[in-house]
Amino acid sequence: MEIPLKKIAQAVGGKVIGDDRLGITGIDSLDSAGPGSISFFADRRYKESLSKTNASAIMVREQTELYEGPQVVVPNPELAYVRVACLFARPVPRFNGISDRASIHESSRMGNNVSVYPYVYIGEDAVIGDDVVLFAGVFIGDRVKIGNRTVVYPNVSVFEDCVIGNNVIIHAGTVIGSDGFGFVQDGTTSVKIPQIGIVQIDDNVEIGANNCIDRAALGKTWIGKGVKTDNLVQVAHNVVIGEDTIVVAQAAIAGSVRIGRQVIIGGQVAISDHVEIGDRVMIGSKSGIAKSVSSGEVVSGTPSMPHRLWLKTSGLIKRLPLFNERLKHLEKKVEELEKRLK
Amino acid sequence: MEIPLKKIAQAVGGKVIGDDRLGITGIDSLDSAGPGSISFFADRRYKESLSKTNASAIMVREQTELYEGPQVVVPNPELAYVRVACLFARPVPRFNGISDRASIHESSRMGNNVSVYPYVYIGEDAVIGDDVVLFAGVFIGDRVKIGNRTVVYPNVSVFEDCVIGNNVIIHAGTVIGSDGFGFVQDGTTSVKIPQIGIVQIDDNVEIGANNCIDRAALGKTWIGKGVKTDNLVQVAHNVVIGEDTIVVAQAAIAGSVRIGRQVIIGGQVAISDHVEIGDRVMIGSKSGIAKSVSSGEVVSGTPSMPHRLWLKTSGLIKRLPLFNERLKHLEKKVEELEKRLK
Amino acid sequence: MEIPLKKIAQAVGGKVIGDDRLGITGIDSLDSAGPGSISFFADRRYKESLSKTNASAIMVREQTELYEGPQVVVPNPELAYVRVACLFARPVPRFNGISDRASIHESSRMGNNVSVYPYVYIGEDAVIGDDVVLFAGVFIGDRVKIGNRTVVYPNVSVFEDCVIGNNVIIHAGTVIGSDGFGFVQDGTTSVKIPQIGIVQIDDNVEIGANNCIDRAALGKTWIGKGVKTDNLVQVAHNVVIGEDTIVVAQAAIAGSVRIGRQVIIGGQVAISDHVEIGDRVMIGSKSGIAKSVSSGEVVSGTPSMPHRLWLKTSGLIKRLPLFNERLKHLEKKVEELEKRLK
Repeated sequence: MEIPLKKIAQAVGGKVIGDDRLGITGIDSLDSAGPGSISFFADRRYKESLSKTNASAIMVREQTELYEGPQVVVPNPELAYVRVACLFARPVPRFNGISDRASIHESSRMGNNVSVYPYVYIGEDAVIGDDVVLFAGVFIGDRVKIGNRTVVYPNVSVFEDCVIGNNVIIHAGTVIGSDGFGFVQDGTTSVKIPQIGIVQIDDNVEIGANNCIDRAALGKTWIGKGVKTDNLVQVAHNVVIGEDTIVVAQAAIAGSVRIGRQVIIGGQVAISDHVEIGDRVMIGSKSGIAKSVSSGEVVSGTPSMPHRLWLKTSGLIKRLPLFNERLKHLEKKVEELEKRLK
Repeated sequence: MEIPLKKIAQAVGGKVIGDDRLGITGIDSLDSAGPGSISFFADRRYKESLSKTNASAIMVREQTELYEGPQVVVPNPELAYVRVACLFARPVPRFNGISDRASIHESSRMGNNVSVYPYVYIGEDAVIGDDVVLFAGVFIGDRVKIGNRTVVYPNVSVFEDCVIGNNVIIHAGTVIGSDGFGFVQDGTTSVKIPQIGIVQIDDNVEIGANNCIDRAALGKTWIGKGVKTDNLVQVAHNVVIGEDTIVVAQAAIAGSVRIGRQVIIGGQVAISDHVEIGDRVMIGSKSGIAKSVSSGEVVSGTPSMPHRLWLKTSGLIKRLPLFNERLKHLEKKVEELEKRLK
Repeated sequence: MEIPLKKIAQAVGGKVIGDDRLGITGIDSLDSAGPGSISFFADRRYKESLSKTNASAIMVREQTELYEGPQVVVPNPELAYVRVACLFARPVPRFNGISDRASIHESSRMGNNVSVYPYVYIGEDAVIGDDVVLFAGVFIGDRVKIGNRTVVYPNVSVFEDCVIGNNVIIHAGTVIGSDGFGFVQDGTTSVKIPQIGIVQIDDNVEIGANNCIDRAALGKTWIGKGVKTDNLVQVAHNVVIGEDTIVVAQAAIAGSVRIGRQVIIGGQVAISDHVEIGDRVMIGSKSGIAKSVSSGEVVSGTPSMPHRLWLKTSGLIKRLPLFNERLKHLEKKVEELEKRLK
């Protein structure tokens, strides 16, 4: 595929300095790009890569003298990179139509132009939107609703009554709507609390591979619009995650936690049940959050503290043996001083 | 569905104060319950919710003046809630009979009234009990035994020779009986130790979604009666977990660990190999357990310590920069004192 | 199955002291072995077990007087145990040929003697080597290449263009080649960066159950020869793992991390993006690695430090309340001394 530079500039809202009829055949990093490829320069640390690149064109924030070929000037070169990469990326593979090796209950409603691979199971009264792709081994429970243009990768399970929006991506092996973990003790026996709520996933969400998002005990577990989760994330029952929040791999969010918008939750973080996390909070990786965090705070550690304090503190942990020595030394000196003063 | 209050009271072993002919159509929390629903009051912190609820009846430990409608007096209102929720909960969905799109080896034995969804694979000489439900994409290896009334959700794998009891629930994506992680070094190469043991899961166990429970190297990995695990839990080879123990999400239990009865293991806990954990131990979330823990202890932290000490200690970590300042200050003062005394 | 002791000695390169015609029917630990079984003695701590064992023969490093039966003297009895266990272990189960319930694109190329279970999906132009076993529910994307003698367990997904070597084992539920977690912010919205690289897995690798190994944004995520990963491991996009490295359960390796050869990464470790880990590094379980680590280092903790320092340090954490007391005490004494000197 070859795209004229002029078209690329139009796609990213940029202005070409140089020959805009040039044909572009791909996109790559400054270091790896070869003739035919376009690249981008967004970070001054890569100046040297810029001056040495073999790319046939670049996207930049401001015209640069470090590069001689055609330049596309754009407000956000990193975002422009993504837009151009999308032009060259292969589309998501699609099974052509509905496989006769899929099992679809006759009461379910299928949208237009759906792609259903073999070994997909769709239960009673499910509603599948237009242009949806369901890969092999996907299980869709009774009465599940899936919006338009949503892609569900292989071996994902979505249980009964859950609701998934438009333009959602769910990666392989993920489980949506399994029972929340709730028991009442009857003597030494754990009696299961029926989990009769649902999971609701709003538009433009992307859920990583091998996630677990449990259905609510009552009501709903709710993943807001534009949320992105990485792989192996645990979301317990009745959790609410606000719009555009990002959850990095292996984080665990316990029951009934409420998370605001545009929050960033680092890898392997644990958030205790019923905690509230405000908007735009950032939580450092591996932190253990046992108390609520106000909007805009940046926290780290177990137990969590302001991130700046944690940087200081965590650096001091390795000085504990020294602290001990200093204490001993002081204790000895003070004792001597006391003796002398007697 | 409408159930007379009298029948509900019988189901929970309670006594009705008020009109027991009232028809109940559902159950919900005090805040969400509407006309027709029953709710429950078990925690004094919800007094205000009780006085404002629209529920048509409530379950309480003792008769209360904060609510005017009919009351069901029961010894344990929380447990009563569970019992009533079960009356209203939808039963687990069942495929009607055995799908002809399942692949079942002719040598296996199937119980009465089993439900086998499409795309289930059952190997040689497997034995499946009565009333078992196997969802789509379940893999059952050769000679596996599954007891009565057990439910296995989609895309679960159970490998050869494993034994699963009665009334067990295994959530989606879980792997039972994969090889334990064992190698012997031959120079720089890791030579795989054959894992020729099994996994045994006893009655009334519930295993969460996307768990991994490895088969033993020799002998068995053993999950005792009534154990409940949350999602994404790792259980290594030759682990033994005692009856009624609870394991919260993302905990990892290393090889040959022995865990007692009624233990509670918090989320993201790691337990080192060969450690022994006594009965009724409680382990705080995110703890790293490197040494054995005696029965009845409550521990937290990495390395672990008594939970009360950990509460103190972990609070002091954020004061380390202050400690450092105080040490410096003292050192300076002591030096001055010494000078003056010279 | 009965194997003469002579043949066992040949298989492990050992020398028999005693009757080499003895028939051996199995292998077990010193404690569990019964008549007919062979066992091994590699660790002096098991002297008592050796003197009491019912095994009919043993493998030892040097002839021992603690055991009366035939002895096979070998340089590495632990390795010899593995070799003999392999003789007695059941081979991996194999579906006989290619199931007609598998879906294989006509453009793909299948090797000799492959075993393809029902419900396997193989996409366009995929290449499957000789003697490969693909269990039920495996998804193989377009243009994937799989080498000879590789075993892929149930419900594994391998996405388009990924390359898997010879003698690889991939355990159940694992996802290879899902999209890396990369977004560019456009205002408050996260715009997905297309992930157009691949995953390459070299020969003799073993990947545990429910792992996630993401495809590269550009280029490749690369798992070197002989690497072994335990269950629930996360490997982000563009990670490179060197030969013979071992990754224990629930470890998470962030984007673009480069790991050397023969590294050992403990359970629940997290490694931050772009970090470099040298050859033969050992990382203690639960550590958080935010900075690069040089070859040969042994590190632990969050933030990480030399393991020996961490042992000291982590022991002192529980003494923080005492440190606080000692500081208070000193402060009081110094104040008194100062008063007296005024």
